Amino acid sequence: MALTLWREARLVTLAGTEGWGLIEHGAIVADGEDIAWVGPEADLPAGLRPAAEHRLGGALLTPGLVDGHTHLVYGGERAREFELRLQGASYADIAHAGGGILSTVNATRAADEDQLFASALPRALALAADGATTIEVKSGYGQALEPEARCLRAARRLGPASGLTVKTSFLGLHALPPEYEGRADDYVAAAISWLAPLAAEGLVDAVDAFCEHIAFTPVQTGRFFTAARALGLPVKLHAEQLSDQGGAALAAHHGALSCDHLEWLSEAGVRAMAAAGTVAMLLPGAFYCLRETRVPPVVALRKAGVPIALATDHNPGTSPLLSPTLAMNQACTLLRLTPEEALRGFTVNGAKALGLADRGRLVPGQRADFAIWDVQHPAELAYWLGRPMCRGTVIAGRPQ
Amino acid sequence: MALTLWREARLVTLAGTEGWGLIEHGAIVADGEDIAWVGPEADLPAGLRPAAEHRLGGALLTPGLVDGHTHLVYGGERAREFELRLQGASYADIAHAGGGILSTVNATRAADEDQLFASALPRALALAADGATTIEVKSGYGQALEPEARCLRAARRLGPASGLTVKTSFLGLHALPPEYEGRADDYVAAAISWLAPLAAEGLVDAVDAFCEHIAFTPVQTGRFFTAARALGLPVKLHAEQLSDQGGAALAAHHGALSCDHLEWLSEAGVRAMAAAGTVAMLLPGAFYCLRETRVPPVVALRKAGVPIALATDHNPGTSPLLSPTLAMNQACTLLRLTPEEALRGFTVNGAKALGLADRGRLVPGQRADFAIWDVQHPAELAYWLGRPMCRGTVIAGRPQ
Ligand SMILES: [Zn+2]
Ligand SMILES: [Zn+2]
Repeated sequence: MALTLWREARLVTLAGTEGWGLIEHGAIVADGEDIAWVGPEADLPAGLRPAAEHRLGGALLTPGLVDGHTHLVYGGERAREFELRLQGASYADIAHAGGGILSTVNATRAADEDQLFASALPRALALAADGATTIEVKSGYGQALEPEARCLRAARRLGPASGLTVKTSFLGLHALPPEYEGRADDYVAAAISWLAPLAAEGLVDAVDAFCEHIAFTPVQTGRFFTAARALGLPVKLHAEQLSDQGGAALAAHHGALSCDHLEWLSEAGVRAMAAAGTVAMLLPGAFYCLRETRVPPVVALRKAGVPIALATDHNPGTSPLLSPTLAMNQACTLLRLTPEEALRGFTVNGAKALGLADRGRLVPGQRADFAIWDVQHPAELAYWLGRPMCRGTVIAGRPQ
Repeated sequence: MALTLWREARLVTLAGTEGWGLIEHGAIVADGEDIAWVGPEADLPAGLRPAAEHRLGGALLTPGLVDGHTHLVYGGERAREFELRLQGASYADIAHAGGGILSTVNATRAADEDQLFASALPRALALAADGATTIEVKSGYGQALEPEARCLRAARRLGPASGLTVKTSFLGLHALPPEYEGRADDYVAAAISWLAPLAAEGLVDAVDAFCEHIAFTPVQTGRFFTAARALGLPVKLHAEQLSDQGGAALAAHHGALSCDHLEWLSEAGVRAMAAAGTVAMLLPGAFYCLRETRVPPVVALRKAGVPIALATDHNPGTSPLLSPTLAMNQACTLLRLTPEEALRGFTVNGAKALGLADRGRLVPGQRADFAIWDVQHPAELAYWLGRPMCRGTVIAGRPQ
């Protein structure tokens, strides 16, 4: 394969388990899609003949960002509902005016695959413009087999169209659609029946659910996960966002890749996640938008050695967020993560939450996925608020 | 003068005292630097022969944004301090390591005018890229005549370099510099003595102070304001941010353009501001960064008819924010402003806080300062988080 060289960079390798792994005056060599060499420019192997060379003029180079939890594909938008709420409308008023998650479900069901793809693509590109090279995209607003499949097909098309790696999650248990009112168990049975056809079509990299008093019970969630695992599909869970349902321990019992949100996570939940190797995916955008006051147990997670990932949780209702670096600032400001934890959350730990061990650090053998930043020090990525910093990305060795 | 036409726009005129003043399929005509005509495209005067015509393809066009409170000119940066704090360092640790506002004062004093200008220019351009057409820039980190003058000269240079209108404020009473430790009254006397030379050089559009238990007393602030007004300089105040000092009433007594922050503003302060026509300048970036819980009395301000302005309060310590639209979201999410109030805060009321009546609305006779946005509805400007939306700006009739 052809070698490509990037030089005059300040490399943030995250090579060890702690520290930035900074290399000043660094260089990085890709052999095709993968990293072949990383080190100080002065140590570049003699006789290296790269086919292409990029001088970065002192820019910061980090692993490409991994946004491991998004609801990027949906119909309609909710800006008008945001406005109504701030004008004093109650949740009942908004539901009556056709707002809330149901408005998104209706708009999603009414949209065809091309429309879903066309509305999601600019959102994917906004994430990419802020350093993302891999994203996860969930279904969950279709809430019936065909619209869920359409959403996942639209999500799959985002990859080739944007250059991003896209991992899909079938969020089968998100909210109970109105036609199943009072028949939640029937809906769970239906969602279970959709697992096989969606998986057969190659649309499901993981299976997701929302275990909460306003959504699905632990028993229903467990039934859904058991069926998913019988098909060999990995699971993850929206857990302990609004109350402690014991969802994290349940998900860990099913070997979940990640448990997400976790404001109400208990000590027992932390221990179960640590034992199972489940990633804690914190979502500061929703925390901020909902003006939550209960912070996920960051100190306990650190102490137990649970990897902490971060994501935008982009969704139209509770986190219309399209900037990983803003999520990093929110994670530091509101959840008290350190800037290094915030970057690890969007790189190596974000990748881990997607079951990807081949990216998230700048070391030989990993995929050549980078983000290039116009800042001096990596702490700045979490420090600035609303400052465009990303100069560009490289995905699988190719400048985007 | 030559006429310029923009068409195929959704105009957000803010023409009345309430409502967006939306015009669908709108057009706007500038005659040189000013707006000559605004209305539906179908009503364009017959026989109009514009020298230039811009088709906006349905984009939203609002008045250009006015960021009326920034500390944009300073030396150094504070990302490392942000990191240290999140790693658990106390304020004493940070002061010992040379951090805090003193680090910015030292770095500012050590910088020459060219360095101050060069570091501030990309920050000004970041504001402009998010829709700003007018900004205010304060001194306040020099804290001696010559470095304060350097900062204000650097601020003045930002205008021609960026295309923005730049209004300067001499923030004479910001923090007590270490060489005046225990001699605050002497420092106030010194700051008063700098008013005349700075004003004579044309560097002072307004005079500002920080009245707070960690800064200057109401008596010191009043002395400073009296001296400023004797020179014909308008005043404004950082008031009631951390405690109720009665600063707003004092400033209103001096006919202040604006009182800024206002988390602890009393009913008496609201009444005094309403009577004096003083603008309430809310700064949600600092509120967010400091994780404040006490919200400014928005309901009382509305009721009293006090105009509410918003600004980024860009500064390296408590608001490293460079996005007006992010400040709008923070104002809605955290302070419960409506999206319309947020846009008025960054347009007509932001202008009013700078004593500018010639901008902030799209009506004939106002300056042709616009921002063009890739969104459907103006509520989206406050709704999205970290989504680049601004396609470009027009300043005094000229596309930037
Ligand atoms: Zn979610
Ligand atoms: Zn300020």
